[in-house]
Amino acid sequence: MTDRNRRVVLAERPSGMVDDRTTRLEETDLPTPGEGEALARVRYISIDPTIRTWMDDAPGYLPPIAIDEVVRAGGVAEVVQSNAEQYKPGDMLFGFTGWQEYVLASEAGGYQGLPDGVPPTMALSLFGVTGMTAYFGLIDVGQVKAGDVVVVSGAAGATGSTVGQIAKIKGAAKVVGIAGGPQKCAWIVDELGFDEAIDYKSDDVAARLREAAPEGIDLYFDNVGGPILDACLAQLALRGRIVLCGAISGYNDRSAAKGPANYANLIIKRGRMEGFLILDYLDRFPAAQAEMAAWLAEGKIKSSEHIVEGLEHAPDALNLLFTGGNTGKVIVKV
Amino acid sequence: MTDRNRRVVLAERPSGMVDDRTTRLEETDLPTPGEGEALARVRYISIDPTIRTWMDDAPGYLPPIAIDEVVRAGGVAEVVQSNAEQYKPGDMLFGFTGWQEYVLASEAGGYQGLPDGVPPTMALSLFGVTGMTAYFGLIDVGQVKAGDVVVVSGAAGATGSTVGQIAKIKGAAKVVGIAGGPQKCAWIVDELGFDEAIDYKSDDVAARLREAAPEGIDLYFDNVGGPILDACLAQLALRGRIVLCGAISGYNDRSAAKGPANYANLIIKRGRMEGFLILDYLDRFPAAQAEMAAWLAEGKIKSSEHIVEGLEHAPDALNLLFTGGNTGKVIVKV
Repeated sequence: MTDRNRRVVLAERPSGMVDDRTTRLEETDLPTPGEGEALARVRYISIDPTIRTWMDDAPGYLPPIAIDEVVRAGGVAEVVQSNAEQYKPGDMLFGFTGWQEYVLASEAGGYQGLPDGVPPTMALSLFGVTGMTAYFGLIDVGQVKAGDVVVVSGAAGATGSTVGQIAKIKGAAKVVGIAGGPQKCAWIVDELGFDEAIDYKSDDVAARLREAAPEGIDLYFDNVGGPILDACLAQLALRGRIVLCGAISGYNDRSAAKGPANYANLIIKRGRMEGFLILDYLDRFPAAQAEMAAWLAEGKIKSSEHIVEGLEHAPDALNLLFTGGNTGKVIVKV
Repeated sequence: MTDRNRRVVLAERPSGMVDDRTTRLEETDLPTPGEGEALARVRYISIDPTIRTWMDDAPGYLPPIAIDEVVRAGGVAEVVQSNAEQYKPGDMLFGFTGWQEYVLASEAGGYQGLPDGVPPTMALSLFGVTGMTAYFGLIDVGQVKAGDVVVVSGAAGATGSTVGQIAKIKGAAKVVGIAGGPQKCAWIVDELGFDEAIDYKSDDVAARLREAAPEGIDLYFDNVGGPILDACLAQLALRGRIVLCGAISGYNDRSAAKGPANYANLIIKRGRMEGFLILDYLDRFPAAQAEMAAWLAEGKIKSSEHIVEGLEHAPDALNLLFTGGNTGKVIVKV
């Protein structure tokens, strides 16, 4: 164990994607755990689109990351030294670790153990915020039911790929994924069991949606916003539901954000568009994780992780989400 | 009784507001009721924004009005001649009468009697589609509850003025109406009991909403769409609900329809935006009308009608809705 902590801080607010000027890798003294605290070594960091929104100086569901502050992120850390009753060296913890090598955990909480028998990377994907977002967004907010025609965007991403699989488990009549490029489209159909894929980079999305869902879309799980959200609104079925999970198309350029011009179709179709935040469901994670574990054991669901090695590559890993360079959950191995 | 029927038909599809070229007043022979049919004299015609949407050749919840067809509208008609068991001369009926002087009612239905003791004009306002839209939109879709901060646009209009009054009855902590001009603003506060009024013609709506609802809007009942919807989205409270009733700002120029750029605030605020159509609630009208009658008897709610005399003025009456020339429910007295 070194006596130094390496960390990535926010150097200035990005106007588009993060770059060399946006973040700064720096070394500080290793913090010393006080009474009731433990020092934990960060092993894996979860890379999520929402991190980019925290870098803006704009109101959100959490305060913006301050300049010179460690970039906020979820992660898994292993306790290496403890002055706290509840933490033992070797314990694996999940919580906001940030983009750094070491973090202090206090008895006051904020960190929890990993679900039994779940490997650390999967604790950040299927069993983490990503999988839980898919689970509660689709089931609670979207009210998915047997026979639904379900469409999901960002379908080769961490959340989208899980949404499609859960929709099949829940008896959806048809699951259509929207993803970028032939490889991702093949992957969600051949490996994950989606019924159809639409390649937004080469297909006419609106026309393909009309073919794929001629009777309309019962449930659209939106990870991207922008023109794809508009195309799905236009093809909504009677009493269709739209789950707003993210609007990644607008994260790097808020000034360009346009509203969905077809929103008035919600009136004609008696439709519903609803946002949610997974933090509101924390108390129900254990039950959902148990169900996820059963599906995994039965081979009904697959977890897919895209591992990037090295803390210093965390900014590049974040950019992957916006360039579509990833398949499945992006995780930085520290 | 004459042997002629005067009626207003759709002559060509309007591109903006209706004008002399859009509709045509014509005379036809009076229809003769066959077996099981009754002839009824139209007394009052309900003028609603949705009529304008039926004039477009665009998909909607009802088919477009065909060229040379009588303009579709709800109304109240009095039976003058009957070959049907269920209709007696003198009976007042409610249903789609259209813009004309006489209509045939058949045993097959489509027409119903007026609620007991309700005058014909009120059957089209508080007890008609207008009042029912306010009732079910606010209570069922919007899930209004005691303590809510409620905002309604088109607040001096037929539906909006009723929404605000029902919100107060249901215990809303504050009801803010958005209307055009000082007279309407004074009317909704002084006569109808709204807590505050915002004049969208002279006020900075976004700034005034921040003042009027500093903790956010719990429920926004949207009759207009456009920039006002966007301003309300921006000021939404946690778990705020937006009831989409109409988008009158876009009815006369669909090409200019813009989506609400602030829709992504639904994610941050875990908000919901939902459309509805009152036709889905027909079977629950009697119960709602009974509650409305009780409120009326107790002096808790007022009905306001704006009567335009003469069938030939029906097109002008429709335009009033878009120029904001009316206060309360617009009804044509035939």
